[in-house]
Amino acid sequence: MKRIALLGSTGSIGQQVLDVIRSLPDEFEVIGMAGGKNLELLKKQIMEFQPRMFYSSVEPGFSYEAQILSMEGIASHPEVDLVVIATSGKAGLSPTLAAIKAGKTLALANKEVLVMAGEIISREADFHESKILPLDSEHSAIWQCLRGEETKPKRLFLTASGGPFCKYSTSQLEKVTVEQALHHPVWSMGRKVTIDSATLMNKGLEVIEAHWFFAIPLEGIEVLIHPQCIVHSMVEFADGCAKAQLSMPDMRLPIQYALTYPQRLPNSQLPCLDWNKIQNLAFEPVDYDKFPCLDLALDAGKLAGTYPAVLCAADEVAVELFLDRKICFTDIAKIVQMTLKQHQNIIHPSLEEILAADAWAREYATAFLPDRGANLSSLSYNQ
Amino acid sequence: MKRIALLGSTGSIGQQVLDVIRSLPDEFEVIGMAGGKNLELLKKQIMEFQPRMFYSSVEPGFSYEAQILSMEGIASHPEVDLVVIATSGKAGLSPTLAAIKAGKTLALANKEVLVMAGEIISREADFHESKILPLDSEHSAIWQCLRGEETKPKRLFLTASGGPFCKYSTSQLEKVTVEQALHHPVWSMGRKVTIDSATLMNKGLEVIEAHWFFAIPLEGIEVLIHPQCIVHSMVEFADGCAKAQLSMPDMRLPIQYALTYPQRLPNSQLPCLDWNKIQNLAFEPVDYDKFPCLDLALDAGKLAGTYPAVLCAADEVAVELFLDRKICFTDIAKIVQMTLKQHQNIIHPSLEEILAADAWAREYATAFLPDRGANLSSLSYNQ
Repeated sequence: MKRIALLGSTGSIGQQVLDVIRSLPDEFEVIGMAGGKNLELLKKQIMEFQPRMFYSSVEPGFSYEAQILSMEGIASHPEVDLVVIATSGKAGLSPTLAAIKAGKTLALANKEVLVMAGEIISREADFHESKILPLDSEHSAIWQCLRGEETKPKRLFLTASGGPFCKYSTSQLEKVTVEQALHHPVWSMGRKVTIDSATLMNKGLEVIEAHWFFAIPLEGIEVLIHPQCIVHSMVEFADGCAKAQLSMPDMRLPIQYALTYPQRLPNSQLPCLDWNKIQNLAFEPVDYDKFPCLDLALDAGKLAGTYPAVLCAADEVAVELFLDRKICFTDIAKIVQMTLKQHQNIIHPSLEEILAADAWAREYATAFLPDRGANLSSLSYNQ
Repeated sequence: MKRIALLGSTGSIGQQVLDVIRSLPDEFEVIGMAGGKNLELLKKQIMEFQPRMFYSSVEPGFSYEAQILSMEGIASHPEVDLVVIATSGKAGLSPTLAAIKAGKTLALANKEVLVMAGEIISREADFHESKILPLDSEHSAIWQCLRGEETKPKRLFLTASGGPFCKYSTSQLEKVTVEQALHHPVWSMGRKVTIDSATLMNKGLEVIEAHWFFAIPLEGIEVLIHPQCIVHSMVEFADGCAKAQLSMPDMRLPIQYALTYPQRLPNSQLPCLDWNKIQNLAFEPVDYDKFPCLDLALDAGKLAGTYPAVLCAADEVAVELFLDRKICFTDIAKIVQMTLKQHQNIIHPSLEEILAADAWAREYATAFLPDRGANLSSLSYNQ
């Protein structure tokens, strides 16, 4: 039995990790668990899975017969075989590093960890011989396609559904409501990721993540719109051959792949592709002008240093402002862009410098708000 | 440098093998070569590649400073690293077995070898620890998708272009001319394979081959029509994930993959996929009623024994009769079916029994011809 520590158990990914574990009861034992705001759910999960260690950022000492440990303590505990990082935002950074320094194998769903601190994480993982497995469908697809290959790929193709506004005009995009943006055509995800999918910021973050996961230069990673979400990403090799991973759009598939790796186990609860129903797989290029967040992310990734942390922080603030109906949908890119423009980059930053850039960007992006009406509309999208 | 013996150098596949070798001059040395009818081309190839050993089935002793050896002698020569079997029909059987018994690694393009004698070939290859690599695009695709996987796949999906008559009605099929049938929409291949692609017999033979290549039951292999010929085949695993191999439809790609395996080498002469041009990958089920050859092949494969050899032989005769304008396109399936119906199966046959079944089927299928007009039209397609 693989002994699992699950950080972020109450989020969308965390709950689906537990779904997979529930459906393969002979394979896994959850020995550590941590959750955030949704304390009621965390309590239920702890009752069901009976972990030996737990942590709640909200109520650190609620009554349960188990050891109360920090997320770092759980992530680095000697009895843990696989640490699943299903937290979101920068909350995942410190426990990820703790797990890496303990030489653990990690399954990583928290995008910001690699986007903000990819250089540090990669260096530490190499040094401590810690393996980081992707949980995201796109990175899992690439990982599956690279399985057994000895040659580095020439190009990666990350597919994107295009989100709910793929066919919208720029003027239509300005009038998008929160309800429309929260309605993703294919995937059911958390609110922040859903908005990031609608702006394509999510795909930009995934490109930066892919760069660190697979040590491929950002120039070698391309994005393709694929509305059916069946091909989850592709890899092209030097010899002209490409490989794609295909499956129903269900996060439990890449989650199970990471959890059971290197095995592939049958699971009757997971959906199979039905080729009587799939008639067409469509691919089209991205309209970068309509979705400036993608370019902002790619630029921040190429400039590296503290830029990607600033990107993440400004986007988080901007998405929150949009969800609070304080800015319009197209303002998200403008706030991120203005914040990036004002940032003084630090190359090869320390973790402290990354966190300081994050704090600065949050403050700047938030403070930027009052002047919004006049200033934002006059900004150009082009960096 | 890998030392190559190429049997069948003057055929369509053989010539493309030499194209790949020409484009990677530091990787390969052709030390043995054998060809059939096209003696002029064989002479040119021998002048260019200067093999130490050669064989011509037409003119065994033409003047050239090299050792004249049989195909079996070349295939089993101690200095050969990789034996490429690009012959066609049953001519490949004996040199394939010779190479296997010498423990060689083989790259196999000759369909009939595994279709006729898959059981013997697989048993001998296991015993002599000889590796057989596929050269065909579909089997190469599956092989590439299975690379590094530890779990047996649940299903294989062989893709088929559908040939030139995919959208034809049954009555239109009866009137197909030789010229129409020789005009494949995507692949440029030899005449026999092109006709087999138009009847879908080729896909049936490939299903039987895939069964032996990958030790997957025939029931686990499905055929999908995919007119663009970009996805060359797919593999589905027990966990619901699938992998596909994609590339431009160019035989040099799977040929190079087998020749350079386990490496993947850049080759500027090979085409890459252009995702600005590929907009749709379409998939549809096969119409088994319109293309009875596919069902005949699947049935022969499941019945096993000497049936698959009879299938191959009857098809070869029937295709030849069609190319000679002695029967119509839809008669091909009828002749194959009648021959299969009259065959007395031998299970677990010896090579001699397989060759005897082949000879019987050729005689039966040919002799069947005079009665064609009356008899064939009254046959039902359903076995």
